[in-house]
Amino acid sequence: MLYLVGLGLSYKSDITVRGLEAVRKCSRVYLEHYTSVLMAASQEDLESFYGKPVILADRELVESGSDKILTNADKEDVAFLVVGDPLGATTHTDLVLRAKRQNIAVEIVHNASIMNAVGSCGLQLYQFGQTISMVFFTENWRPDSWYDKIMENRKIGLHTLVLLDIKVKEQSIENLARGRPIFEPPRYMSVSQCCEQLLEIEEKRGTKAYTPDTPAVAVSRLGSASQHFKAGTIKELSQYDAGEPLHSLVILGRQCHELELEYLLEFADDREKLRADVLADQEYFKPAPWVPPAEEEDSD
Amino acid sequence: MLYLVGLGLSYKSDITVRGLEAVRKCSRVYLEHYTSVLMAASQEDLESFYGKPVILADRELVESGSDKILTNADKEDVAFLVVGDPLGATTHTDLVLRAKRQNIAVEIVHNASIMNAVGSCGLQLYQFGQTISMVFFTENWRPDSWYDKIMENRKIGLHTLVLLDIKVKEQSIENLARGRPIFEPPRYMSVSQCCEQLLEIEEKRGTKAYTPDTPAVAVSRLGSASQHFKAGTIKELSQYDAGEPLHSLVILGRQCHELELEYLLEFADDREKLRADVLADQEYFKPAPWVPPAEEEDSD
Repeated sequence: MLYLVGLGLSYKSDITVRGLEAVRKCSRVYLEHYTSVLMAASQEDLESFYGKPVILADRELVESGSDKILTNADKEDVAFLVVGDPLGATTHTDLVLRAKRQNIAVEIVHNASIMNAVGSCGLQLYQFGQTISMVFFTENWRPDSWYDKIMENRKIGLHTLVLLDIKVKEQSIENLARGRPIFEPPRYMSVSQCCEQLLEIEEKRGTKAYTPDTPAVAVSRLGSASQHFKAGTIKELSQYDAGEPLHSLVILGRQCHELELEYLLEFADDREKLRADVLADQEYFKPAPWVPPAEEEDSD
Repeated sequence: MLYLVGLGLSYKSDITVRGLEAVRKCSRVYLEHYTSVLMAASQEDLESFYGKPVILADRELVESGSDKILTNADKEDVAFLVVGDPLGATTHTDLVLRAKRQNIAVEIVHNASIMNAVGSCGLQLYQFGQTISMVFFTENWRPDSWYDKIMENRKIGLHTLVLLDIKVKEQSIENLARGRPIFEPPRYMSVSQCCEQLLEIEEKRGTKAYTPDTPAVAVSRLGSASQHFKAGTIKELSQYDAGEPLHSLVILGRQCHELELEYLLEFADDREKLRADVLADQEYFKPAPWVPPAEEEDSD
């Protein structure tokens, strides 16, 4: 049996009871270690909690070496651990398909992921549109196809969850070229950097998918003891220090209801300013006001 | 401390280890019991698992009697259990706001909900638009504002998660009028009923937000041992018996990628027909093909 087990967001104890029971009976335990990290637990913490070794699985192992992960999984139990939900923010459907083709039974143990836990910022999950990913811009690579997706979401009034890039086990071009297994320290995109990239692309495109004054929510360390939310405009958040990783961002849509706003105001430096910013931003993409149809025959 | 603890989708052991630790130290434990139910665990199962009584909280208690729930929560620990994630498919933000106003500390213990676990049908969570709810139609009440939301999602190619109505602890109009505390047996909307209502409203509106041939995925008992997916057109699923509750539905959007389709084909009665249906449906809301801009000056 291959168990795909979600670990939730932060603590070793965020695993479900059922997930823990599965892990404890597995002969091999892999931890997917390139799309996210568990904020409040190290590999050693997990090993002592599970009572067995945990093998870190980088992108190469998962994408090219999945046969290694699946070895003997038809006869013994193997666990593949994923931060968040196993089929949530990241796709591991490919691993499931490969297992099925080898007639290996698969069991999914779900858990919270950023995709649903972000509801704790007070915005309704019902009102979110498609999710986008923001990668670190480099000198020559500044992809902005997400801009159109924000536009599409905002045109119909929906909020946009922005997932921020992380770089774990990256090599410098020099080390890569020379085949030296030396890795750069991990990097995690901050809310402020994300907002700067948003502003840069809006300035370049100029079609007002959002503006510097569009309200957004900085989400930091969601699900951990130091979880924090800050509501402000994109411009304000581009200068905001959200502290330690991991960060995410939510860009508001027009459909921000009174109860959502009331909740958000708790996270604002200046409540009245945020209220005014939300109201002003709601003017964008506002449907034309309803006008009664002209009467075909004038009764006067 | 008020703990809002997500229970996940199905088993008593779907609670997280951290959630269980919290529940076990609480002096009172409420289970929210009107927006969803835990499929594979009864109230008694939970009570013996937690080692303490569990109080069922109906809508009236949560919406009008929240002071009762919050009594002494500044001095002792109280747990409020929610199937899925506490701030997921259902809003309990109001309870959080009330607690905060009374200076009661609140801790959220997240868990999987339908909103993220639906990713296990193989469709990418990134590509979902706003979520809609389908209520039981009555003779005089057939609300269809969700139709416009499906249209909005499909216009930009996104999938739509449809949450299906449940009726727990409902009274007949006669019993209500006579003040008799007699409750109807619980009712859970089926995929087929949902699809019938979809077809009825499409026939009435006629603006092709979707058609009878639009592909969809019937999701039944997600997260339980008998979890099942069936992919077919809305018309086909209107005649499909998805078995025991709980059910949900996903209506496909145009942005259905090859890997998503490959996964879905596993759930089709007729793989070739489903593939053809998906391709045909992708013609709706298709953006106009890109045409190179006419050259301003002809160089010939």
